[in-house]
Amino acid sequence: MNVNAPPAMDSDAFRAGIQLVVDRVNSQEAGNLAAISPDLAPLMDSLVALMSGGKRLRPAFCYWGWRSVAAEADLAAHHAAVLEAAAGLEFLQACALIHDDVMDGSDTRRGLPAAHRVFEGIHAEAKWVGQAPMFGIGAAILLGDLCLSWADQVFLAAPLPTEALQRAKPIFDVMRTELMAGQYLDLLEQARSNTSLERAHTVVRYKSAKYTIERPLHLGAALAGASNAAMQAFTDYGLALGEAFQLRDDVLGVFGDPAQTGKPAGDDIREGKRTVMVSLAYANASLSEKATMTGLLGKHDLDANDVATAREILTSTGALAQTEILIEQGITSAYDALRDAPISEEGRSALADLIEASTRRAT
Amino acid sequence: MNVNAPPAMDSDAFRAGIQLVVDRVNSQEAGNLAAISPDLAPLMDSLVALMSGGKRLRPAFCYWGWRSVAAEADLAAHHAAVLEAAAGLEFLQACALIHDDVMDGSDTRRGLPAAHRVFEGIHAEAKWVGQAPMFGIGAAILLGDLCLSWADQVFLAAPLPTEALQRAKPIFDVMRTELMAGQYLDLLEQARSNTSLERAHTVVRYKSAKYTIERPLHLGAALAGASNAAMQAFTDYGLALGEAFQLRDDVLGVFGDPAQTGKPAGDDIREGKRTVMVSLAYANASLSEKATMTGLLGKHDLDANDVATAREILTSTGALAQTEILIEQGITSAYDALRDAPISEEGRSALADLIEASTRRAT
Repeated sequence: MNVNAPPAMDSDAFRAGIQLVVDRVNSQEAGNLAAISPDLAPLMDSLVALMSGGKRLRPAFCYWGWRSVAAEADLAAHHAAVLEAAAGLEFLQACALIHDDVMDGSDTRRGLPAAHRVFEGIHAEAKWVGQAPMFGIGAAILLGDLCLSWADQVFLAAPLPTEALQRAKPIFDVMRTELMAGQYLDLLEQARSNTSLERAHTVVRYKSAKYTIERPLHLGAALAGASNAAMQAFTDYGLALGEAFQLRDDVLGVFGDPAQTGKPAGDDIREGKRTVMVSLAYANASLSEKATMTGLLGKHDLDANDVATAREILTSTGALAQTEILIEQGITSAYDALRDAPISEEGRSALADLIEASTRRAT
Repeated sequence: MNVNAPPAMDSDAFRAGIQLVVDRVNSQEAGNLAAISPDLAPLMDSLVALMSGGKRLRPAFCYWGWRSVAAEADLAAHHAAVLEAAAGLEFLQACALIHDDVMDGSDTRRGLPAAHRVFEGIHAEAKWVGQAPMFGIGAAILLGDLCLSWADQVFLAAPLPTEALQRAKPIFDVMRTELMAGQYLDLLEQARSNTSLERAHTVVRYKSAKYTIERPLHLGAALAGASNAAMQAFTDYGLALGEAFQLRDDVLGVFGDPAQTGKPAGDDIREGKRTVMVSLAYANASLSEKATMTGLLGKHDLDANDVATAREILTSTGALAQTEILIEQGITSAYDALRDAPISEEGRSALADLIEASTRRAT
């Protein structure tokens, strides 16, 4: 028996491990907030509900970025600590979701009311003074700020060697900046009604590919002190898979089943998202289809007929089929990068599973 | 000549030192953002303008928290590095201001348009699609998120011994949580139209006294490895002075000169802020004065006559005079705490100057 082996880690065991850390942090912070004022309790209630769901993909990439390249002697010794560090990424993601829902004016998230709607509802029910929607926005901004603060707090509090955390922190910093920059570019392209394929790709790269996959892998790899060759392999794998991941998200944002996505049907059309799939449709659409599509993108009261029309245009222009081809190309490139990556066989197998989990999904 | 002496540091020299670090960070981050997309430039332009002003009080308390208790041998050796760490607090403050202005619906900050108004203007001028105010809010949320990320990035990147930074980081974490919690309680009391003196004091304690003075002092003291006795003295000084600081802010928010505060006259009344001074007015006002005051608090189109009426009620009820007495009591308590604090004479003198700078000011 190899005493240095960390526990086997399928995706259910991994999610349960992350949930344990998330629950512990939330319970500690609930105590800290309660010591300030009992009036702060709704902030934690809303966050705990949000954080009970999710695919935990970013922590998974961070964890396997570490486990794929860690020295044999560190595997069992640091396994639990790396899980703790990786859980910090769930707080960064919670911030991104809460703030994103404010910016997009989204009503729901993971099948629950979005945080700003929860606080808008509290205000309206209590008949407080001022505008309920602005109270909701203010509370959601602050809840997101708490999550953003707790992200690096949790990551850096993991009981790992100081040098390991110091290697990883600059990557954590770059990741946050890229995420916020990508979100701003996304906002900008929606406002500009931009349908340029190149710009849609830039948004995908920063908002999703780097933030969701490449940087979490780099974070974990830095904790392990990975070689430049491993870092480069994770970039090749991460950017290819990250693009495929986001394209799958874009398809689900229009064609997904609300019961599975936790978002209303056609929500991306309602929010006017300028996705790669939408850009592909514009490139092939007739003048009248373009006009119809432009009328639907960002239409606040989009109904079932409108969703059906948008789906039809995305299908008839070939945009959906082209997007599926791009997803398959991304998957192929990710497998290619994985094949030659200087990582453990166990890591290669787990990262192959994560290709499937990221791209062949209904939620 | 004492070779271990750090440079003399009056408030002008200090502000110039902080500005140098802030400018260097902003220039680096502008480069990082430009490498992602030239479209990100307006974010940095807006931030650079905001960060060219300010009293730099939080970095000053952090710096003097360190310099008051640091070992003789560390004074010259770590002086520049502590300035760098302290400058991180300006990014936390930039986040607080940018997000606060969104939540309060403020139009101006430091005599310039608030960040969300800048981006609202860019959207309106370019005639982009969607609502310009929501674009402004979204951009300001993201700019604040960038600042919040850069705050710990700058603090932890200071070239100080790892143990020093590790002692300070948990205080940095508590400080951020207290700040966000205090902001939420402030939002809540405005919404509830609360005029309870006790609740107004809780907001002051967390949003201002701890965030602006006590925690920055603790941060610096932790960098130096201060004794518990010094920490306690900083708490006594910080909470007393912090309350006086905020009460001065509240007086300026109603009675201040717009040319000096950079905010419109009576802005706190317009925003419906439930300050300690307002609570004191309610405690002494007649029924008709209460009704008038309730009508003015949060009145969006507050005019010069309204401001004059509010000032009259705050004066005639004695609330202004009582607030000035509370400020003087806070100043006295802060001096008392300073007298017996186990700190250097140079530190005692600088912290005495900061009492004056925090409470006898017009901006």
